[in-house]
Amino acid sequence: MSDPMNTTDPVASTRERRDVAMTIVNTGDGKGKTTAACGVALRAWAHGLDIGVYQFIKSGKWHVGEETALRALGEQTGTVTWEHMGTGWTWTRRNQVAEALAASTKEKPSAQESARAGWEHLKELLATQRHDLYILDEFTYVMDNGWVETAEVVDVLTHRPGKQHVIITGRRCPQAVLDLANLATEMRKIKHPFDHGQRGQAGIEW
Amino acid sequence: MSDPMNTTDPVASTRERRDVAMTIVNTGDGKGKTTAACGVALRAWAHGLDIGVYQFIKSGKWHVGEETALRALGEQTGTVTWEHMGTGWTWTRRNQVAEALAASTKEKPSAQESARAGWEHLKELLATQRHDLYILDEFTYVMDNGWVETAEVVDVLTHRPGKQHVIITGRRCPQAVLDLANLATEMRKIKHPFDHGQRGQAGIEW
Repeated sequence: MSDPMNTTDPVASTRERRDVAMTIVNTGDGKGKTTAACGVALRAWAHGLDIGVYQFIKSGKWHVGEETALRALGEQTGTVTWEHMGTGWTWTRRNQVAEALAASTKEKPSAQESARAGWEHLKELLATQRHDLYILDEFTYVMDNGWVETAEVVDVLTHRPGKQHVIITGRRCPQAVLDLANLATEMRKIKHPFDHGQRGQAGIEW
Repeated sequence: MSDPMNTTDPVASTRERRDVAMTIVNTGDGKGKTTAACGVALRAWAHGLDIGVYQFIKSGKWHVGEETALRALGEQTGTVTWEHMGTGWTWTRRNQVAEALAASTKEKPSAQESARAGWEHLKELLATQRHDLYILDEFTYVMDNGWVETAEVVDVLTHRPGKQHVIITGRRCPQAVLDLANLATEMRKIKHPFDHGQRGQAGIEW
C-alpha cells in the first residue's frame, strides 16, 4: 500500500525511501559540476552500478582525464560507457545516416543535429534501462539552446522505467528540470585563476 | 627574470603560467565538495600525478565508494594514498605514542588531538613533497573548530615547496584560506532530498 515515490509516506520503509531513482542537477557558473558528477560515478562504480557518461557540447579533447580514469575502472570490473555527443561522433546508425546525408550535401551534421540525435539515442537507452547511472554532461545547454524541448526532457525523465539515476550538468538549468530534480546544487564561483591571467593545467583542469 | 607565480607578468610564458601549484577550495552548504575533489583526482591520476587523500572528521565508513575506486586506480598504476585522520587511526609513530598515552589514561585521543596529529603529519608530507595532489577533506572544520590555527595553515600552504596542489573541502572555509586559494567554489544547495524525508542510498550518497 505504501508508495515508495512518496517519500513523506510514514508507511514507506527506510529501504523503500532509499530505493528512489535520483535526478541530480549540478548547475551554476562555478567549477565542479562535471567533476562532482564523476565523483558520484566513483561511488556508483564501487557499488557495482553500470555507468553511462554522455558528453554533450564539449569536444572530445575535454575531460580526457576523467574519461581515462573511469574507462580504466570500467575495464577493471563493472561497466563504464563514455560517449561524445558532439559533432563528429559515429556511434549510432542514426548518425551514420546523418553523416551519409551530410556527405551527400558536403556538410557535417550541425551541433544541433548532433545533440538532437544524441538525445534520441539517450531516450532509447532509458527505455531499455541500459545503465544504472547516466551522466548527461552539459546537457543544460542542449535545452537552453532549444535544440531539445525542456518539456520533452521532463516527460522522458519523469516516466523513465525502473531505478535509473540521472545526473545533468551545465549552467542555466531550466526551472522545470530543477523542479523535477531530487537534488540540485549550484556551483558558484568565489574566485577563479583565469580571472588573473592564469592558464589551465593538465591534471587539474582536464 | 619572469616570476611564474606572478600570473599577470606579461613576460611569463604560457608554460610558466600553467606551472603553478594550485590551492583549491570547495566550500558551501551544498553537495559536491568532496565528489568534485575526487573528480579532480581522476584527472590527476590520468596525468600520472601522485595523489594523497586525507580525510578529516568523518569516520571511516564514509566516502567508501570514492576510496574503493581511487584505491583501485592506484593499484592499477600510479599512486593513491588514502588516510583517515579521525580518531582511531594508527598511521604514525606520533599516534602510537598518543594511543599509548591514551591507553595509560584509559582515554582515546580526542577528535582535536587526532586532527592536530593529522595536521602535523601533513606538514611533514608537504615539506618532503610526498604527493603531487593533496585532498584535505573536511579540513575547514579543523580550522573552524580552532583545532589548528588558520594562520599556521596559511603559512604552511604559502611556503610549501615545489609544485604541490592542495584541495581543501568543507563548509565555513576561513576567509584567509579563500584569500590564499587560486580557485574557490561555493557549492550552494538548491534542493536536497533529505529535505523531503528521503534517505541516502548506496552508490549515490556514499
